[in-house]
Amino acid sequence: MTLALRHSPAVVPTRWYGVSVPDEPLMSPEAFSDAMQQIGRERYHNLHPFHGLLHGGKLNFGQVQAWALNRYYYQASIPRKDLTLMARLKSPDMRNNWRSRVLDHDGHEVEDGGISRYLQLIDALDLDRDYVISTEGLLPATRFAVDAYVHFVAERSELEMIASSLTELFAPAIHRERIAGLSEHYDWADERALAYFKKRLNEAPKDAEYGCDYVIRNARTREHQEAVLNALRFKTDVLWAQLDALYAAYVEPGLIPPGAFVPDDG
Amino acid sequence: MTLALRHSPAVVPTRWYGVSVPDEPLMSPEAFSDAMQQIGRERYHNLHPFHGLLHGGKLNFGQVQAWALNRYYYQASIPRKDLTLMARLKSPDMRNNWRSRVLDHDGHEVEDGGISRYLQLIDALDLDRDYVISTEGLLPATRFAVDAYVHFVAERSELEMIASSLTELFAPAIHRERIAGLSEHYDWADERALAYFKKRLNEAPKDAEYGCDYVIRNARTREHQEAVLNALRFKTDVLWAQLDALYAAYVEPGLIPPGAFVPDDG
Repeated sequence: MTLALRHSPAVVPTRWYGVSVPDEPLMSPEAFSDAMQQIGRERYHNLHPFHGLLHGGKLNFGQVQAWALNRYYYQASIPRKDLTLMARLKSPDMRNNWRSRVLDHDGHEVEDGGISRYLQLIDALDLDRDYVISTEGLLPATRFAVDAYVHFVAERSELEMIASSLTELFAPAIHRERIAGLSEHYDWADERALAYFKKRLNEAPKDAEYGCDYVIRNARTREHQEAVLNALRFKTDVLWAQLDALYAAYVEPGLIPPGAFVPDDG
Repeated sequence: MTLALRHSPAVVPTRWYGVSVPDEPLMSPEAFSDAMQQIGRERYHNLHPFHGLLHGGKLNFGQVQAWALNRYYYQASIPRKDLTLMARLKSPDMRNNWRSRVLDHDGHEVEDGGISRYLQLIDALDLDRDYVISTEGLLPATRFAVDAYVHFVAERSELEMIASSLTELFAPAIHRERIAGLSEHYDWADERALAYFKKRLNEAPKDAEYGCDYVIRNARTREHQEAVLNALRFKTDVLWAQLDALYAAYVEPGLIPPGAFVPDDG
């Protein structure tokens, strides 16, 4: 009767970013924390060759434009993600704590926020703000990956939605590397262009600390801990997939999908 | 007060797959139909170089395995997409009409359905069914693109969600090309392995005709017509992005993301 699907596995598999190995014992806070760090060491997008090229000054102007244009959609979607998440938090205390993330990006006034600072990078790269904000030239793969992140926090448990933000644990190192690398290698990379990343050096650590404390306190079974680790793996995939798409479209093989941004010098 | 975002465009941009050019006059049914066909000629994934390699016998066994494994997730998600869509149809008549699509894939009994036929291809390619069904080795970009399709039909208007299925207009041609190309070039491509695609030659046209009639009848303004065309563009992007990810991971540059399927001979 169920010839084909009787083969379907009994355990929800890892790559659905669900829960696995429930029979293992609970990890100590230290071991759990190490497991999170290990995911960063193995899967965070600082390891992607696109970042090697970007930070090493190996990209031409059009390739950097493509990166900034696509990354804009990620950046501008973070407050949508955080508001989706906040709307599902039951505790006013947690909502209040999370609010600063939205303010960091949207600003008390728009011009004070991270999105405005990010648009200074867009200016420095001679991209038209309206075009970038319109997402007209976005790689579809960027949209799909970023929207997957927003949907993830709309659909998963409180523990998983908070855990998916924990790539912030690894962010300051890549921001420092980026600021140094871009400043060294590209003429356009002045104080104003890099203001977004410089500010994030101060913002990300407090956010990471809050999220990390939360998941350590609230992952009370091994299943919970595995759910946290899978949410973090999911998020590393969201970041990695964006660089894969940039690399394929603008570096090698250089297949730009129909309708996506075509650099002048590309 | 809104220094940065005062620049945001007044018209919802094309690439949000929303509505644009509302001032243009209504297209005739023939012109509207031609506009749909034109999207197929410009953006359907039969134009992607990965399909050229696949159908021309230029891929090695591991590369074909990677294609079949990733495409499984698309295939197996179609009934989830159709049920999401049906759940939002207000008319019992339309729900009844749409039901055959779910039965085509899930079967009256599972073994009669398209997913079971697709698993015959998985068998022919010496892939482990459990592994494929688990989606453990799936490219994250495949998951994000396919899930974007399911979310699209959950969130958009009835007109848009139905329009997003209209790539079926172009499907029989690519299925014929695939059946001929795979049969000619690959030893494993026997009757049983290709049964899914052969059956689709009969199923897709009735589905396409129903959807096409529906959008022509119900797109009563130019804005509606543009929404239909954008939904169809969105869907071509969903298909194209899957091949971009396969090409980048398994052909060139050959960057397989962390955790994704690694062919034995790759």
